[in-house]
Amino acid sequence: MLKKTYRFTNASTDYYFAGSISNLKNIADQKNTVIITDEHVFTAHQKKFKNWNTIVLKPGEEFKVQATVDSVIVQLIEMGADRTTMLVGVGGGVITDLTGYIASIYLRGIHFGFVPTTLLALVDASIGGKNGIDVGVYKNMVGCIRQPKFILQDASFLVTLPDPEWKNGFAEIIKHAAIKDAALFRQLEENSLNVYQKRKQLVGQLIQRNAILKTKVVQADEFEQGDRKLLNFGHTLGHALENQYSLLHGEAVAIGMAFAAKLSEQFSSFKQADRVINLVEKYGLPVSASYDKDKVFTVLQSDKKREANVMNFVLLKSVGKASVQKIPLEQIYNYI
Amino acid sequence: MLKKTYRFTNASTDYYFAGSISNLKNIADQKNTVIITDEHVFTAHQKKFKNWNTIVLKPGEEFKVQATVDSVIVQLIEMGADRTTMLVGVGGGVITDLTGYIASIYLRGIHFGFVPTTLLALVDASIGGKNGIDVGVYKNMVGCIRQPKFILQDASFLVTLPDPEWKNGFAEIIKHAAIKDAALFRQLEENSLNVYQKRKQLVGQLIQRNAILKTKVVQADEFEQGDRKLLNFGHTLGHALENQYSLLHGEAVAIGMAFAAKLSEQFSSFKQADRVINLVEKYGLPVSASYDKDKVFTVLQSDKKREANVMNFVLLKSVGKASVQKIPLEQIYNYI
Repeated sequence: MLKKTYRFTNASTDYYFAGSISNLKNIADQKNTVIITDEHVFTAHQKKFKNWNTIVLKPGEEFKVQATVDSVIVQLIEMGADRTTMLVGVGGGVITDLTGYIASIYLRGIHFGFVPTTLLALVDASIGGKNGIDVGVYKNMVGCIRQPKFILQDASFLVTLPDPEWKNGFAEIIKHAAIKDAALFRQLEENSLNVYQKRKQLVGQLIQRNAILKTKVVQADEFEQGDRKLLNFGHTLGHALENQYSLLHGEAVAIGMAFAAKLSEQFSSFKQADRVINLVEKYGLPVSASYDKDKVFTVLQSDKKREANVMNFVLLKSVGKASVQKIPLEQIYNYI
Repeated sequence: MLKKTYRFTNASTDYYFAGSISNLKNIADQKNTVIITDEHVFTAHQKKFKNWNTIVLKPGEEFKVQATVDSVIVQLIEMGADRTTMLVGVGGGVITDLTGYIASIYLRGIHFGFVPTTLLALVDASIGGKNGIDVGVYKNMVGCIRQPKFILQDASFLVTLPDPEWKNGFAEIIKHAAIKDAALFRQLEENSLNVYQKRKQLVGQLIQRNAILKTKVVQADEFEQGDRKLLNFGHTLGHALENQYSLLHGEAVAIGMAFAAKLSEQFSSFKQADRVINLVEKYGLPVSASYDKDKVFTVLQSDKKREANVMNFVLLKSVGKASVQKIPLEQIYNYI
């Protein structure tokens, strides 16, 4: 296990790379910690939760809503959770988003940490302090930015990870490569999902590289005034599709990246949309979908990145380099 | 109008003393602002809201709950509120608490400002960035600490303020005097509610003195690690009583201060509980109530200031000087 501490604007976060959840008792006080997880993770790894106070939620994005927050808060009150209590989210992005959000508002904020159990959560969702919930079809409409005290990475959870969840994670890994890391992009082109799934050490390196890549972007711009916006590559159309068509987050982002790559050829100097689309397809992710254009556009207009009649859209300049451009909403409407 | 800017940990707040809501259009962009107010304020001052997008809520502490937050968020989405939208809370403490909370979580945080319309909001609730909602009988169980961009004080709203609301405000003014300002305490002893209500200039000075007193406490300790805790004087028993017996906040705090003053004679060196009790009574506030001891104690145990079996209780050392002491819950039970 390798411990590294990263400093953010108001707080610092301890990262434990290549760790194990069995170390959790050395990081969090067992008596004063409440674990939040979901039924999938709890059932598959029951032993790991022995002796921990645990709240088990129903799994899935459809439960990343206020009703779940309400029920957890009532349970925390009943358990007597106070300002010294630590919440630990053990799960995928839904669990880390919910745990971070609940910890940010309960008693006006208590400490929290994460044990991400999916590839997507390991490389993306657990990192950077963004948390929150969906409101109807609108993704992450409500939330905060607040950093966890620690992120404990334990790749042993990946052993039980279903295939679609692996692909889900690779969508964000491809995103990182596309916007920031041309060498990683080439590595992904040379390997395949199957290679990473079989080679433990290689996937360990991949996770650490992506976690650090995202962390550095967040450190430089925690409150998304500049460079952090690039992490939204593929997420504008992606979010508009996701909850309407019950796609996995990675699938929606994959379609969004294919769209944004083509848009980059129109509005930026980008010439390699096909290369992005091929890589997305190589990792078993979709690059298009049939959807109701007007319904999707309506949701897209409520994206957090909209300002009046323009959308701040992330476009590629080249593989490994991205920028934000203001595109009028009507132009976007024409292209979707 | 006097403008003063106070710096907090992550943000600064512009205070406009002796201002007028007619100046709001110079502070906030009318097209991109949503005012949140309640039916009482809106009905009594309808003209002041002309040309502003306004959400009008039902008045009263019983609406400081998640259901209200949910409904405002849906309205903001429908209005197309984006990251550049500013929320302005025009009202008493319930409105400023709700507005600050909603602005803190909508789209992970948008800007907000306050126009406090009650004496209590002017001297206390609008200041310091604490916001939030109640959960069942538990006061402010959920919320954030985030500073407004501005606080615009307009004492003309006090013209329509009902008498009980004046008393409500004086509870917090007496609190400030008791914990931090012996000279103010003497001034309050020499004057009366009636004197302040009649003398506009005197009440203006009183508001400014109290607003600055609280601001300086918050500046020194925004996240309540030390001195800010003193502002909870009277609020431990107060909060436990408030929602169970539908007392006004000031009434509950008044009873809480009388209790804390007596407790200070037991557990601290304080000798002047009677002086505190007399001043509270002079301003028309209650110093005792009949209540169900066990029910109140149950709620009190969920106070944010509890840590395991002890309560961090604010006690007086002398008039104008307070400190936090850990008192075992069982001892508190014996005294209530």
